[in-house]
Amino acid sequence: MNQSKLCGKLLPAISCLVVLPVALFPVRASAQDPQSKNMPRHVPFMTPASESQAQQDNFPPALLEQLAAIKTAALTDAYAYHQLAHLTENIGPRISGSPQAQAAVDYVAGELRQLGLEVHLEETKVPHWVRGAETAELVEYSGQVSGTRQKIVLTALGGSPSTPAEGLTADVVVVDNFDELKALGRDKVAGKIVLFNELFDKQKAAGGMSFVAYGESVRYRAAGPKAAVDLGAVAALVRSVGNADFRLPHTGYSFPAGIPAGAVTAEDAELIAHLFAQGKVRMRLTLTPQKLPDVTCYNVIADLKGSEHPEQIVVVSGHLDSWDLGTGAIDDGAGVVVAMEAAEILQKLHLRPKRTLRVIAWMDEESGSSGSQTYTKDYSAEFIHTAAAIESDSGAAHPLGFEIKMTPQAEELLRPVLDVLQSFGANAVQPSSYPPGADISAMSEAGVPALGLMQDGRTYFNYHHTAADTLDKVVPAELRENAAAMAVMGYALASMRDPLPR
Amino acid sequence: MNQSKLCGKLLPAISCLVVLPVALFPVRASAQDPQSKNMPRHVPFMTPASESQAQQDNFPPALLEQLAAIKTAALTDAYAYHQLAHLTENIGPRISGSPQAQAAVDYVAGELRQLGLEVHLEETKVPHWVRGAETAELVEYSGQVSGTRQKIVLTALGGSPSTPAEGLTADVVVVDNFDELKALGRDKVAGKIVLFNELFDKQKAAGGMSFVAYGESVRYRAAGPKAAVDLGAVAALVRSVGNADFRLPHTGYSFPAGIPAGAVTAEDAELIAHLFAQGKVRMRLTLTPQKLPDVTCYNVIADLKGSEHPEQIVVVSGHLDSWDLGTGAIDDGAGVVVAMEAAEILQKLHLRPKRTLRVIAWMDEESGSSGSQTYTKDYSAEFIHTAAAIESDSGAAHPLGFEIKMTPQAEELLRPVLDVLQSFGANAVQPSSYPPGADISAMSEAGVPALGLMQDGRTYFNYHHTAADTLDKVVPAELRENAAAMAVMGYALASMRDPLPR
Repeated sequence: MNQSKLCGKLLPAISCLVVLPVALFPVRASAQDPQSKNMPRHVPFMTPASESQAQQDNFPPALLEQLAAIKTAALTDAYAYHQLAHLTENIGPRISGSPQAQAAVDYVAGELRQLGLEVHLEETKVPHWVRGAETAELVEYSGQVSGTRQKIVLTALGGSPSTPAEGLTADVVVVDNFDELKALGRDKVAGKIVLFNELFDKQKAAGGMSFVAYGESVRYRAAGPKAAVDLGAVAALVRSVGNADFRLPHTGYSFPAGIPAGAVTAEDAELIAHLFAQGKVRMRLTLTPQKLPDVTCYNVIADLKGSEHPEQIVVVSGHLDSWDLGTGAIDDGAGVVVAMEAAEILQKLHLRPKRTLRVIAWMDEESGSSGSQTYTKDYSAEFIHTAAAIESDSGAAHPLGFEIKMTPQAEELLRPVLDVLQSFGANAVQPSSYPPGADISAMSEAGVPALGLMQDGRTYFNYHHTAADTLDKVVPAELRENAAAMAVMGYALASMRDPLPR
Repeated sequence: MNQSKLCGKLLPAISCLVVLPVALFPVRASAQDPQSKNMPRHVPFMTPASESQAQQDNFPPALLEQLAAIKTAALTDAYAYHQLAHLTENIGPRISGSPQAQAAVDYVAGELRQLGLEVHLEETKVPHWVRGAETAELVEYSGQVSGTRQKIVLTALGGSPSTPAEGLTADVVVVDNFDELKALGRDKVAGKIVLFNELFDKQKAAGGMSFVAYGESVRYRAAGPKAAVDLGAVAALVRSVGNADFRLPHTGYSFPAGIPAGAVTAEDAELIAHLFAQGKVRMRLTLTPQKLPDVTCYNVIADLKGSEHPEQIVVVSGHLDSWDLGTGAIDDGAGVVVAMEAAEILQKLHLRPKRTLRVIAWMDEESGSSGSQTYTKDYSAEFIHTAAAIESDSGAAHPLGFEIKMTPQAEELLRPVLDVLQSFGANAVQPSSYPPGADISAMSEAGVPALGLMQDGRTYFNYHHTAADTLDKVVPAELRENAAAMAVMGYALASMRDPLPR
C-alpha cells in the first residue's frame, strides 16, 4: 500500500479502530466449523434484529451452505501461501518497470489460466526507476573525532533524482514539521539538506491505530521534498515512516520535487537531531538512482465467468508490484494471492458464481497507480455492471473484517455473509467515506460498492516499504484466514440474488 | 559482550533464569526511598534468617545509610546517560584499533580526572580490522527471473579475511548444524560457501533465557568458519545470532579460519535455505575488510583512593570498545558509564571508601580481550589485594541484580547490600561457577570475588552487535538503576569492615 496521497484508508481507519476496538482481539474459531457440515446457523451478533426478508432472499440456505464450505476449504488451503512463496522468494522484489514485475505478471497469468480462468493482460505504461548507491555520512559535527565520520543509514525515496556520483555535501537543517520549516525561511534553508524529523506515533500503532500514525507522518515523505525545494534546499530527508527501531529505512512514493530525497532511519534521525541541537552538522549525501524510460507492463485480469449474469462483475484484487528493498510479501503479494485463491477455491469446489468473479493483480500501485488508471480508462463503461470491488492491501495479518464504502442498505444486506466469517473473527465492518483501496478508488467513486479487506495493522508499519517485508512476516494460518474472507465475500457478492443496491 | 568463547555468562545465565523467574518482573519502587531519610530498615526477603553478627559488623547503620544515600542520588543522576550520549553520538562506534576507540580512551580518562581520580592509561596492543564492502547476491537459483539476481543482506564477521575485490562466486550448501556438515563430507563441501542456518531460539529469549539462546547459536558464529574450511569450503556464512527479524545482520568475533566469514540476516538465511531445498543456489560474495597492523591502545584505570586500605582494590568496570556497525550503546558503553557514575556519585556525596574504588574502562573485549590480558600481566600481583571486581556487560535494561562467583559465606555477607537494592528490584543474586564477566575472568579465576551486573536480557540480542545498538535503545531510568546498583555495590564492597572472604 502506498497511500502517500492521504486518500483511501487513512480517515476511515481512524473511525474503524475507534469504533471497533473489540475487533482487534477477535476470538478465533477452529478451521473446522460446524456450519460446513450442517445447515448454517445464522446467529445475529452485531444487532439483535432478526434476518430481513431481503437477506433471506439474497442468501438462501443453499448459498449459505456454499459460503460455509468455501470458508472451510480456504482455512485449510495452502494455495495462497505457496503462490506467495514463489512471488517473493523465486521472483523477488517487483518494482514497477523491473523484469521481476513482468515475470510476476506472466507467472500469475499462467497460474490463473491453469485454474481455467479467462485471462487478459491489460497493457499499461509504468515508470522505471532503479535504485543506485545510497550512502551518507556526517563530515562535520560537534565532538567529532578528527579524521572520522559518522555513517548514516538511509534509502532513496521512490522517484528521487540522483545526487552527483561523488555525492553532494551540505549543511543539514532539522525541522520537526512544515511550520518550523516555513518559520526558518529561505535564508536558513537555501543550499541545505532539510531533515524532517516527524515522529511516527508508536503508541497509536501499538493501540491498533497504525494507519492514523502513518497518515500523520507520511505527509512529510510525500510532500516534504517539495516544501524543502520551494525554500531552496538541495536535498530532502525524512525520518522513516514506521514503528520499529532496527535502523531500517523505509522507502515510499514522494511527489517529484527535483531534488534528491531519502529516508533516514529513526536512529539516524535522532542522531542528526541531537548533533544539530549542539551545533553545525554537515553531511555528504550520495543517492544515485536512475529514472529510465517508461516500460510497458500489465494488469492481470482473469475472469471466472458468471453462470447467470456474466456481464456483472465482482472484482477481487491486490497489487502485484512492490517496493524493491524487500520482496513485497505483506505489501502486497499477500493481496494478490488471496484474490487468486478466491478463484482457486471455487474451482476446487466446482462452484460457479452467478456473476463473473474477476481476479485482478494490479500493476504500479506504489509508483503512480498507472495500472488502475488504465483500467478506469479501458473499463469505465463496465463500472455500471460492476456489482462490487474488493481489494486487499493492508498486509497479511489476521483479518478483522472489511472496510466498506456502500449504502447502509447494501451494508445491512451483507450481514449473513459476515455471520459466516464470525467464526474466525473476520466479521467487522467499518463504513468509510473514502474508497477502501487505492486501486479500486475510481470504481468506488463511480458508485461501485467497494470493500477493503481489513487486517490487524499493529505491526504492518514495522515492515512496510522496508527490506524486511519478506515471506517470513506472513503467518500461514493468518494468510489462510485472509483468503477465506476474500473467497467467502467474493463468492457471496457474485452469487447473491440481486446486485448490492447503490 | 562478546562471549563467543562460550565461557562466562552462558551457563550461569541458564540456572539464573530458571531459579529466579520472579526476578524478571521485579516490582519497581520510587527513586525516593524512605531508607535515605531514616535509619535503614533491613527487611530480609530471600531467607527468613535475621541479620548475622558478621553482617552487622560489616554493614553498621552509618554505612547502610550511606548506601541508601548513594542509591537515591544515582536514581536521579543524569551523569551516566550524559556520558553515554557523548560516547555514542559524538564519538561513535569504537572498534579496537579505531581512532574513535582512542578518542574514547582520552575522553573517559579526562572525565575521570575531572572527577578527581588518579588516572592511569595502561598500554595494550589491539588488532586493527577495518570493515570494507559487504554485498552478496544469488546469481543462480530455482525460478530465477532471467537477468535478475536476489540481493542478500549480510555483514562480515570480525577478523574475517577479504574475498577478492570483485567477489568470489560459488555454490552454496546449507546445513542446520555441525553434524549435518560433517555428514556431507569434503566431497560436497569443498569449493562451496557453507551457510550455517542454526535458529536463534526466540521463545527462550522472550522467556528471559536469551543468554541460553545465544549460547546455543553463537558457537556456529565462533567455530563455524573453522569447521567449514576444514572440509575445503571457500567461505562461511552464519545465520545472524539474534532474536529480531528486521533484516539486520549481527556481526561478532569468529575464530580465525582463513576464509571469508559473514553473517546473513535471519530473512536471508530463510530465503537461501528455501531455494537450496529446491535446487542449486549459487552466490557471489564480496567482503573486503582489511586487517591492518596492530595498534597501541589503552585500558583506562582510574582510582578513587581508599581512606583506610588504599592497597585493597574494588574494581567497577565495563568495556569501552564496541563493534563498528552501531554506536555501542548497550554493548558496552552502558557498562563503562555506570562504572564512571559509581565514582561520580561518591565524589558528589563526598563519600570516601575505605578501600580503593578502581574504575576500569576495558579495551578490546570484542576483538580478543587484549586489554584484560594486559591487565592480568601488569596487575596479577595485586589480585591478592583485590577485594572484589564487578563488570557490567549485558546491556542497559532494568538490572535484576548480580551474577556472582564467590564463596557462599561471601554471598551471605552481602545480604544487607541487596536489601538496599530491593526497592528497585535489583536484589537478585545468582551464584555462578563461571566468571561473571569476560574482562574480570582472570581475576575471578585467581580467587577475587566477582560480580556481573545482571540485566533483564530479553531484548538484548535484538540489538547486540548490530547497526541498531544505538543510544535510543537505552532507557534513561533503567540506566540510572544500573548506575545505582553499581555504585551501591561498589561502595559497599569498598567500605564494608572486612574484605569478602575467599
